[in-house]
Amino acid sequence: MAIRALVFDTFGTLVDWRSGIAREAERLLPGVNGGAFADAWRGRYQPSMEAVRIGARPFVDLDTLQAESLDDLLEAFGHPGVPAETKRELVRAWHRLDAWPEVPAAMAQLRKNFVLAPLSNGHVRLIVALARRNGLIFDAVLGAAFSRDYKPKPALYRDAVAALGFSAEETLMVAAHSDDLAAAAGHGLSTAHIARPQENGPAGGETGPAVPVTYAASDLVDLARQLGG
Amino acid sequence: MAIRALVFDTFGTLVDWRSGIAREAERLLPGVNGGAFADAWRGRYQPSMEAVRIGARPFVDLDTLQAESLDDLLEAFGHPGVPAETKRELVRAWHRLDAWPEVPAAMAQLRKNFVLAPLSNGHVRLIVALARRNGLIFDAVLGAAFSRDYKPKPALYRDAVAALGFSAEETLMVAAHSDDLAAAAGHGLSTAHIARPQENGPAGGETGPAVPVTYAASDLVDLARQLGG
Repeated sequence: MAIRALVFDTFGTLVDWRSGIAREAERLLPGVNGGAFADAWRGRYQPSMEAVRIGARPFVDLDTLQAESLDDLLEAFGHPGVPAETKRELVRAWHRLDAWPEVPAAMAQLRKNFVLAPLSNGHVRLIVALARRNGLIFDAVLGAAFSRDYKPKPALYRDAVAALGFSAEETLMVAAHSDDLAAAAGHGLSTAHIARPQENGPAGGETGPAVPVTYAASDLVDLARQLGG
Repeated sequence: MAIRALVFDTFGTLVDWRSGIAREAERLLPGVNGGAFADAWRGRYQPSMEAVRIGARPFVDLDTLQAESLDDLLEAFGHPGVPAETKRELVRAWHRLDAWPEVPAAMAQLRKNFVLAPLSNGHVRLIVALARRNGLIFDAVLGAAFSRDYKPKPALYRDAVAALGFSAEETLMVAAHSDDLAAAAGHGLSTAHIARPQENGPAGGETGPAVPVTYAASDLVDLARQLGG
């Protein structure tokens, strides 16, 4: 069964969230340890989505969730009373992340042969900002905003397959996170793991898949080569 | 107030549905009058969406609606008993439409300065096929599939504004149809009318807006010029 479409996790897989958040935190919050701040913010990411996932609140986008996490985080880092404008800038730091170095050229190559879409917890405006900043071209934006829910809820994977119109097996979920790939495989998608050993800075990142996958790649260039294009 | 994003009606505004459907109908149904067949099929387009709009049935995509209209249409044109494979090819004719001649270059120019998205009754796969065929690059795909409803229902216009994250006034609805622009304006969007005097073949097309609009343009190149880029 040939792959026809690739759907991508974004934070960690395509863009280096930790370096970008650390950079902006150090710029906006003098004296803060940017890496630790980024790790702590990211640590609040999964719990913040849980209220949406379990249906305890209607869908709200990631900017909203990141803003909600921020007050407590600023207090923990000894920066209470930060002006509202600075808080807005910090939330916007998630829109100003850089792609991992090989990503832009590899995505341009992949787009010649495959339909490409993010399947991310990021909403449309956030994805558009990241794509434009890094010169990435997607055919459509799927994921949280399209499905009004967060991974790993089934709707995200199922809606993506249905929207692109290929079979689940022809649709390849690409991620640096084994849990995302396990969820995608549970809905019949093909899967590709991308090693991102620097995702979490000194704490490392997944150097290979912890679950069975269709492809395991060292980076997106390697994946493109394995896909024959 | 500066325009930041453009959202586009697709059928008639960006692509010439009548010539494309006529060409494919004449190829697949020997002896049929392609233009008349295209007009008759398009004539069933608005009524077919109404059951979704009024909530009498869950959202189904345009391929499904076009397929449902087809049996009756084939009988009316003296082609009953057409094989299922030919019917599928006819539905796929809507994926193989050509853009009006100035559209690809004008869209590439507009994308330098504005975020671009279709706001169409077409679903994701259909829009992706039309965009790839004609070399159009969108930042996101909004419209029927994103909102699970059909224009002119309010959700489509409101969801598009919210997804792109600019104000309604900064979001410009671009269409060759005054009714679509009137609906968009009702939700606060800025509006641009594009003249498409050949949309309906011998029956013509809108040569100018029948409602108040922010911009009235002879084509997309003219609109890009009026927007200063």
